[in-house]
Amino acid sequence: MDSDKAMVIFQPSGRRGEVPKGINLIEASRLLGVDIEALCGEKKVCGKCTVRIEEGHFEKYGVTSSMKNVSAWQEEEEKFISPERREKGFRLGCVAQVKGDLLVFVPEESRAGKQVVSKAARDIHIQHDPAVRLYYVEVDPPTFEEPLGDFERICRALERDYGLSSLTIDIFTLRTLPDALRNGNWKVTVSVWNEKEVIRVRPGRAEHAYGLAIDVGTTTVAAYFCDLTTMEVIDTVSMMNPQCKYGEDVMARITFHMTSEDGLKRMSDDIIEGLNELIDKAIANTYPPTKKKKKKKGAEGSGDTVDVPEVVEVPEEGKTYLRLTREDIEDITIGFNTAMHHILLGLNPEYVGMAPFPPVIHHSLDIKARDLCVNINPSAYMFVLPIEAGFVGADNVGVLIAEEPYKHEENQLIIDIGTNGELVLGNRHKLISSSCATGPALEGAQLSYGMRAAPGAIERIEIDRETKEVNYKVIGRDAWRKFSEPKDMKAKGICGSGILDVLAELYSSGVITKSGVFNKKELEDCKRFRINPDNRQPEFVLAWAEESSIDKDIVISQKDVRQIQLAKGALYAGCKLMVKRMGLEKVDQVKIAGAFGTHVDRTKALIMGLFPDCEIEMIQGVGNAAGDGCRAALLNRKKRVEANWCSRNVEYIELTVEPTFQKDFMEAMQLPHMTDDFPHLRGIVPDEVLDQ
Amino acid sequence: MDSDKAMVIFQPSGRRGEVPKGINLIEASRLLGVDIEALCGEKKVCGKCTVRIEEGHFEKYGVTSSMKNVSAWQEEEEKFISPERREKGFRLGCVAQVKGDLLVFVPEESRAGKQVVSKAARDIHIQHDPAVRLYYVEVDPPTFEEPLGDFERICRALERDYGLSSLTIDIFTLRTLPDALRNGNWKVTVSVWNEKEVIRVRPGRAEHAYGLAIDVGTTTVAAYFCDLTTMEVIDTVSMMNPQCKYGEDVMARITFHMTSEDGLKRMSDDIIEGLNELIDKAIANTYPPTKKKKKKKGAEGSGDTVDVPEVVEVPEEGKTYLRLTREDIEDITIGFNTAMHHILLGLNPEYVGMAPFPPVIHHSLDIKARDLCVNINPSAYMFVLPIEAGFVGADNVGVLIAEEPYKHEENQLIIDIGTNGELVLGNRHKLISSSCATGPALEGAQLSYGMRAAPGAIERIEIDRETKEVNYKVIGRDAWRKFSEPKDMKAKGICGSGILDVLAELYSSGVITKSGVFNKKELEDCKRFRINPDNRQPEFVLAWAEESSIDKDIVISQKDVRQIQLAKGALYAGCKLMVKRMGLEKVDQVKIAGAFGTHVDRTKALIMGLFPDCEIEMIQGVGNAAGDGCRAALLNRKKRVEANWCSRNVEYIELTVEPTFQKDFMEAMQLPHMTDDFPHLRGIVPDEVLDQ
Repeated sequence: MDSDKAMVIFQPSGRRGEVPKGINLIEASRLLGVDIEALCGEKKVCGKCTVRIEEGHFEKYGVTSSMKNVSAWQEEEEKFISPERREKGFRLGCVAQVKGDLLVFVPEESRAGKQVVSKAARDIHIQHDPAVRLYYVEVDPPTFEEPLGDFERICRALERDYGLSSLTIDIFTLRTLPDALRNGNWKVTVSVWNEKEVIRVRPGRAEHAYGLAIDVGTTTVAAYFCDLTTMEVIDTVSMMNPQCKYGEDVMARITFHMTSEDGLKRMSDDIIEGLNELIDKAIANTYPPTKKKKKKKGAEGSGDTVDVPEVVEVPEEGKTYLRLTREDIEDITIGFNTAMHHILLGLNPEYVGMAPFPPVIHHSLDIKARDLCVNINPSAYMFVLPIEAGFVGADNVGVLIAEEPYKHEENQLIIDIGTNGELVLGNRHKLISSSCATGPALEGAQLSYGMRAAPGAIERIEIDRETKEVNYKVIGRDAWRKFSEPKDMKAKGICGSGILDVLAELYSSGVITKSGVFNKKELEDCKRFRINPDNRQPEFVLAWAEESSIDKDIVISQKDVRQIQLAKGALYAGCKLMVKRMGLEKVDQVKIAGAFGTHVDRTKALIMGLFPDCEIEMIQGVGNAAGDGCRAALLNRKKRVEANWCSRNVEYIELTVEPTFQKDFMEAMQLPHMTDDFPHLRGIVPDEVLDQ
Repeated sequence: MDSDKAMVIFQPSGRRGEVPKGINLIEASRLLGVDIEALCGEKKVCGKCTVRIEEGHFEKYGVTSSMKNVSAWQEEEEKFISPERREKGFRLGCVAQVKGDLLVFVPEESRAGKQVVSKAARDIHIQHDPAVRLYYVEVDPPTFEEPLGDFERICRALERDYGLSSLTIDIFTLRTLPDALRNGNWKVTVSVWNEKEVIRVRPGRAEHAYGLAIDVGTTTVAAYFCDLTTMEVIDTVSMMNPQCKYGEDVMARITFHMTSEDGLKRMSDDIIEGLNELIDKAIANTYPPTKKKKKKKGAEGSGDTVDVPEVVEVPEEGKTYLRLTREDIEDITIGFNTAMHHILLGLNPEYVGMAPFPPVIHHSLDIKARDLCVNINPSAYMFVLPIEAGFVGADNVGVLIAEEPYKHEENQLIIDIGTNGELVLGNRHKLISSSCATGPALEGAQLSYGMRAAPGAIERIEIDRETKEVNYKVIGRDAWRKFSEPKDMKAKGICGSGILDVLAELYSSGVITKSGVFNKKELEDCKRFRINPDNRQPEFVLAWAEESSIDKDIVISQKDVRQIQLAKGALYAGCKLMVKRMGLEKVDQVKIAGAFGTHVDRTKALIMGLFPDCEIEMIQGVGNAAGDGCRAALLNRKKRVEANWCSRNVEYIELTVEPTFQKDFMEAMQLPHMTDDFPHLRGIVPDEVLDQ
């Protein structure tokens, strides 16, 4: 064995392999395709990557594992690992480095979920002004001289201490009021919504209220679980949209509604059930795994305790748990595209799918969560972000209030690529929006071997210009194909972030021509190129069956290439028309939102002509900006006003009725189309490629 | 046979007798103890008293009946009786006068209900300004140039045509909007609540919306079913409060809540279920009895019809039916005492029953009916009238906004005698209120033979001063005992309106003394006076077993007399303290609300010293003023503001803590107590009685 390397075996998966000595256990796990939770990005602050080093000789693997084979204990680990657990061999995966052979056990709670969620919260600046605020008041008990009602009594205190007036109270909260006041010995904490309505009264002093910012995508639903007082993102939870079974894109779901008797109700019920699961998941994470127990129902205000403890420390895990219940969630903001908006709210989505695509409502809605059967505090509201147009939804409004192009002088082009493409262009003077049917191809769907961003998905690729040999990297494995044994790749398909790489490389290497057709002349002797005997389609092999975990060659077909071309053509043509509409020469900045934007290679996006020419440095992925916008609206109610302003002041352009759209679209399908000037590509892409 | 009289037989009951010629058939029915519906009070405007004159000789009764034996047809009857039905002998009972022998058939729908509901709507002046108003708008359909959302489209039209702005829309209504607009060909009628929120959208033009003003008493629940557009009272429906099974008075129900685990929920569920039955009853009355059929569920906006016909004429009955559904009820106002308020809303009533009796809330509430599971239009609100104090509830606020003492210079004393007595005294400058525990005795409850105002209840009584013989009249029979066969009386008990008569007559005839004790000296030889062998109580027989339908002597016991004395003592002492508090010599006007006030004999009320001295002419029964106030709030939203003003500006006096209350109370139990001056009784009651 190479003395610079060591054998590492991860349990319970049994994955093993030689890794360079000196790397930490997280890095080792990546090389070997093991998923360890690393929420903080190896900053040693989240403690999620706790693993256990097993001691002893393991005959089965032929290794002797010992604490001596990892680097020394560090101070940072003390915060997360108790002395007892340290004794048992627990270490932080991001701290402990490989010094020799190891058998490492990954406890359940340290294993990362199978799906790679890329909707983590970005650090955006939000001013603290939540719709739900807490007010602590002390009131005098009633007397014969002044037998004032309980509600009027707290109103008087709220006006005296905080200047709040003309408050109303939700009937569900009113029911808890008399006992909360008496259990708290006339000292209570009142949650007030928008300085208007009392939505919760807790005995004693409470410091925290919680909320969820939910982004309902066509495919994925993600939520930021936030502390409304500290603005901290406590957790990020996500799930597949349960409506996927009714169709992959919005048109399929609208069609399902139109062709089945109770389609709308079924889809609406499913997503509501999904939201409730997501909420349960968020809450469950606030309980110690070993002691998952809900607070006694109705304990609030009906027991003897004056204040319910909100936090519990579990020393043996080195963790602090909030122990929240559904009642503790007092606000929700939610964004989605127009069709998802309509379906979730039970609004007929039929007309959104028919020209001229009018939505049922643009304006934001404040709906009692209970009216949608969403199980949070029974008096709490959900703020439904406003929508711009039939195909530019509340999610785009979320992007806008997160990115605030209307506050800048420079022209920004913001592209949100989900299952549909939503575009906004403009600056402080004017904003226009449109949508383009990119389809889900850019997300990897509808391709022969398209897949979600999960382990085994090809996310990076390089094709040799001479040999046409393919080198690639899959999610869950850091080593590229070139440096791996074929059988270690375990490739399964191509995910969204790999799509552009694939197309750009196919083009740059001459495998396909400008028009997207396989270049038969160049591929004469290439064994990767072939005609599929089943469907008679030309195709190109990216990974051979022996490199895959599915025992099949992973290929990209002529049809796949067309799909991607259609998507990027639609996107480009849309961008171009918008730039023309605004009378601009060029855009100052391009922001790409969505998971696609997080992973996209900016140069390759320019090569592919996804959007008009722009300085590479001014192209920026902004992640889940839609979710960030929901979060901004959760933590700052002025953002809600701003959202409504956006939804009515962004001019919507219906691209398909523009006279030049079809021509632009066809031209834009070329790779890259030279009908436009891409000066910023010169020097990055060889001239002979650009000018071919 | 006396030529001034005629024999009249009513079918199907078969009741018959000689009546003076010239009286109308309603009057004849009263004399003979037949109940014919006469909602409008013989004003010839309701058409409810339609009866049929049978033609021919009827051997069984020995009469020949003919259309010639009634007075001539009158124009007013045409509105209710079609030519076909006129041909068949139909007439209005309040129009047709007896000219000769008659056999009269009373159709099922003209027979009055068994219970005598005295909560009929009074003719009070209400300005038309309902919280729910209808607006008809025509909007342009969306185009590519202007694909504005459905909601924003109707908002624009409502602002353009009616100046309404900043409207919101209920989520349940929003769900019906797109189809209502399209089914109505972009012409719709919009129901707007308080110029704030859209709560219904109907295709086409609709002229009517409906509402209920509900008065929830401890014993009886009554509702006025009103047309919000025309202000017409379409129907009055009532029922027993289903909570009666948990206890007769409010304290009993509060105790039930405190002593049983789910007492509050059970009582709340029961009254809500009761309200839903009442609503169903009101709606059912708008359907032809022969064709009771609900509108197809969801027909609104989902069928081909642009406008659902709201009215159906049934020529064979000469009636017009509205054919309403629950969705057609778009507003409810509701009043009750504080305990009933708390229990219905699910608010802990415990503290209302404990000194210092603070309510959970004073202020009015706008609650979505659906949040209380009240089945009307799913977007509609219920307006819960505000309450004054723990023992002066929303019902009293209803009385206030109906009677408006705060708009007059004269001092009014308003007494609302239900199961509890609520008192208000004052004028435009100041108003004070209080409550006194009259108990239910004045309503006939808790007495040995107390009963509700139903057929067989003794409602008037006279006792001969010399012989102590008793003459009385029962509900359902116009002939007094003196003019009847014993077996025809069918007496059952004594109802509220008979109580005062009984006590006043017992006193005036010397059967009882000033202090309420049976006057043994006077009763030495009276066989009506005796000691009950079972309970050893002295008692006085009002009706012998042979005159009763229950085969028992109907008596009033010493304990009964005490109960009534306690009630009237509490009432008087309360009134007196209030008059003193206001620094008044006397009150200018006494208004008696509630069923009790409708039937009470003003003179006897004064004799009994129910309230301080007042000119007889200035004593007035104001019927169900609480219900009238609810109706005012239903039809005029400014009354809602006024109600809140009342609830906070009437000063509540807790009588039981006033130092002189006990003494006043004891004194006031005397009949009448001469500690006060009753100049207005002089001349009405013999001096020797007053001064005995």
